[in-house]
Amino acid sequence: MAHFAIAHCNMNSFLAAKSFVRNTGSCSSICHNSFPFQTNRCSKGFLRLCKGRHQNQSIVRATATPMSGELEKRTLSGSLHSDSFSKPKKVMIIGGDGYCGWATALYLSNKGYEVAIVDNLVRRLFDHQLGIDSLTPISSIQNRIRRWKSIVGKNIQLYIGDICDFEFLAEAFKVFEPESVVHFGEQRSAPYSMIDRFRAVYTQHNNVIGTLNVLFAIKEFSPECQLVKLGTMGEYGTPNIDIEEGYITITHNGRTDTLPYPKQASSFYHLSKVHDSHNIAFTCKAWGIRATDLNQGVVYGVLTDETEMHEGLYNRFDYDGVFGTALNRFCVQAAVGHPLTVYGKGGQTRGYLDIRDTVQCVELAIANPAKQGEFRVFNQFTEQFSVNDLAKLVTTAGKKLGLDVQTISVPNPRVEAEEHYYNAKHTKLIELGLQPHLLSDSLLDSLLNFAIKFKDRVDTAQIMPTVSWKKIGVKPVTV
Amino acid sequence: MAHFAIAHCNMNSFLAAKSFVRNTGSCSSICHNSFPFQTNRCSKGFLRLCKGRHQNQSIVRATATPMSGELEKRTLSGSLHSDSFSKPKKVMIIGGDGYCGWATALYLSNKGYEVAIVDNLVRRLFDHQLGIDSLTPISSIQNRIRRWKSIVGKNIQLYIGDICDFEFLAEAFKVFEPESVVHFGEQRSAPYSMIDRFRAVYTQHNNVIGTLNVLFAIKEFSPECQLVKLGTMGEYGTPNIDIEEGYITITHNGRTDTLPYPKQASSFYHLSKVHDSHNIAFTCKAWGIRATDLNQGVVYGVLTDETEMHEGLYNRFDYDGVFGTALNRFCVQAAVGHPLTVYGKGGQTRGYLDIRDTVQCVELAIANPAKQGEFRVFNQFTEQFSVNDLAKLVTTAGKKLGLDVQTISVPNPRVEAEEHYYNAKHTKLIELGLQPHLLSDSLLDSLLNFAIKFKDRVDTAQIMPTVSWKKIGVKPVTV
Repeated sequence: MAHFAIAHCNMNSFLAAKSFVRNTGSCSSICHNSFPFQTNRCSKGFLRLCKGRHQNQSIVRATATPMSGELEKRTLSGSLHSDSFSKPKKVMIIGGDGYCGWATALYLSNKGYEVAIVDNLVRRLFDHQLGIDSLTPISSIQNRIRRWKSIVGKNIQLYIGDICDFEFLAEAFKVFEPESVVHFGEQRSAPYSMIDRFRAVYTQHNNVIGTLNVLFAIKEFSPECQLVKLGTMGEYGTPNIDIEEGYITITHNGRTDTLPYPKQASSFYHLSKVHDSHNIAFTCKAWGIRATDLNQGVVYGVLTDETEMHEGLYNRFDYDGVFGTALNRFCVQAAVGHPLTVYGKGGQTRGYLDIRDTVQCVELAIANPAKQGEFRVFNQFTEQFSVNDLAKLVTTAGKKLGLDVQTISVPNPRVEAEEHYYNAKHTKLIELGLQPHLLSDSLLDSLLNFAIKFKDRVDTAQIMPTVSWKKIGVKPVTV
Repeated sequence: MAHFAIAHCNMNSFLAAKSFVRNTGSCSSICHNSFPFQTNRCSKGFLRLCKGRHQNQSIVRATATPMSGELEKRTLSGSLHSDSFSKPKKVMIIGGDGYCGWATALYLSNKGYEVAIVDNLVRRLFDHQLGIDSLTPISSIQNRIRRWKSIVGKNIQLYIGDICDFEFLAEAFKVFEPESVVHFGEQRSAPYSMIDRFRAVYTQHNNVIGTLNVLFAIKEFSPECQLVKLGTMGEYGTPNIDIEEGYITITHNGRTDTLPYPKQASSFYHLSKVHDSHNIAFTCKAWGIRATDLNQGVVYGVLTDETEMHEGLYNRFDYDGVFGTALNRFCVQAAVGHPLTVYGKGGQTRGYLDIRDTVQCVELAIANPAKQGEFRVFNQFTEQFSVNDLAKLVTTAGKKLGLDVQTISVPNPRVEAEEHYYNAKHTKLIELGLQPHLLSDSLLDSLLNFAIKFKDRVDTAQIMPTVSWKKIGVKPVTV
């Protein structure tokens, strides 16, 4: 999977640096001061390229304020919000250039956390390879970070590389010294994992090995550091009993125990998350790692308080058949006059949440950490809907905007129950203080109007599902 | 992990072939007829080396009888045993050079099955790298197969390569066309997986990706083929309720469902088996794969009816702290006058079985296949013992042989409960006809006397545990 693991390090002009990579593996860089940055220093560690033998992977600490020392630790204060922290928390966000990761990075930065993004940017490569694109135009990660700094005055550090490369990850840990790691850095699309054998294997390798490396890095370099790991509600499948938050107490033949809730994942992607959960739980027990597994529902929406500050901060919004989530796709379909594509009978029921709640939940988990050795599971969603429910809601909301919304049933490309019982608990994050944004309030302002605003960017060829759970084969899909 | 994936193809003289590998990737071979083989043909497919771009991996169909055609299918009959099959079954045994795999290959061959071994021989490499060795001297796989042919007149085909290399595995499937695949081809030691980060990652990568490839190969090339996969009782951990066979019926909040039994594995190895089980279950549902997951207990013993026919057929017998299983290790310790090393309190209770029952169980699973789309789980063991129970049994048996057997408690290198409830069901294989060999009958003849016979080969430096669950680090252990 080498061609996925390559993190292209686009050194944009704003970074005011040129790098010269030598075949010897040695590292040299030339830095220039350049508007709008006040780059006082360019020392080893401040801008590193091509450390060690992995010439295609780089650690880039992209920061733009004067630094008084290589590993200077500043007390951040004066957040734009009132709830600043007396003791700043250093949060490493793996996958911080992605849909949930970017929104979370800005939210936490705005809350006064000291944020570092770790990302190999491979999600952008997937777009190129699959010929798809975000509905919203998104800036490069370097420009995003620059814009954020220019607007709110906060630094976000950037480490570009692949967490499956332990040498890179170790270096990022040693330099940044995180107190919390939020791990979004996984291939996160079920259809992507079902395209072909290569991508199925890639998904499981990338997600499982990446997470193993994160666990080893915490054990070795930051044993006090808490892990906040994004799981998925899809790990549970659709059992005919209530879904609990991670564990279930079972009485059987007169004896009782509380055990991990049984898992029934339904794609190689979802399975990779199940594998992660088991691996993490083991390391909590064996090594005393403290971890929170956020079994997240389907996320919808795109705007957060931070990403809407400037179009240079816009988050990605996927509406294609591979990376687009159900409700986001429906809203784009409604905006361009494409029928809403319900898979099969449409009775598939899942938990959903607004991306503004995703970022809240992550912060609640960080601010209320698991105990040493604890493997804690929260079900991270706010409301349940069936696909048919969503179609009806979008149809009704579309009418208010003058849209004529039709719905069609398309053959279900997945293997899943289309009519089933579903009742999943989700109280733990509420107890920690989550204040949900409900879909009824978000549908028009945050979703449909947003989709309409960008409808000229829609490529309708991306809308229909192209990946079949049953037809996945061993030949690489190259077109 | 490239250095593990290399399958060294020792072309011994009996194979009567020399191979010349060209850097161009092309393939040439020169074959000579040579005693004792009647090698009439040396065609493409009969002896292949270096197919494609993986120059270090080879497909070797090592057969030694006259062949009337490249893919000749013969009806095997006249088994040495009475229970020959009217319709021969073609069984691919992945990992057929290993402890359980080799015994199974001979057993099935003797029963009239047409057997092919697929193995990258990496288990032999582990011995070299860790400086350990089997108590029993074991022949090369090529000489083993030759000896088997000379004694019972049965062919066993041999495909040398790594199942993580899909190109190799696909070729093996296309040439052999298995009707059953028995999958032992995994790194199978919990301590090995806990040596260092590299070996933890290797274990999960090798086991998970290898199994994914097997599933894809079945789907693509042999959709009717059944998979018999070796799991482990260790997947369940030690819950405080009875362990069922794969599934448990749960009534919760007034509703009932039968769900996968919750898993609590306790090493990266055991976790890899949990991952496999989830992956296989999904493909049964999504693709109609038919699979049996054999959650095997701790295997003891070394002799089977077949391996004891000749010392050239002897099975490996590991007594070291990494690959040796509990009872085998105790018997070797007793034989050489080393105290039995009980980890911690010794209350750790597990299921155990004689290797003669392992081979029986695999055949019962093959002969009574799962239905298309069924994911069937059997708990494969015959008796439960605590470690203290085993120590007492070996002490008593040793006295009968005049051995003075002492027992010491050593600090437990693992993270596990040392006193716990344990009651695991294991009726399904009995219902299919398993006739257990009980430990009380096997201990003296098959184990202790065998250990005494080879005690001059014991390296006492290998006996003590060297791998700690808590101390595993990120630095590769190189000594």
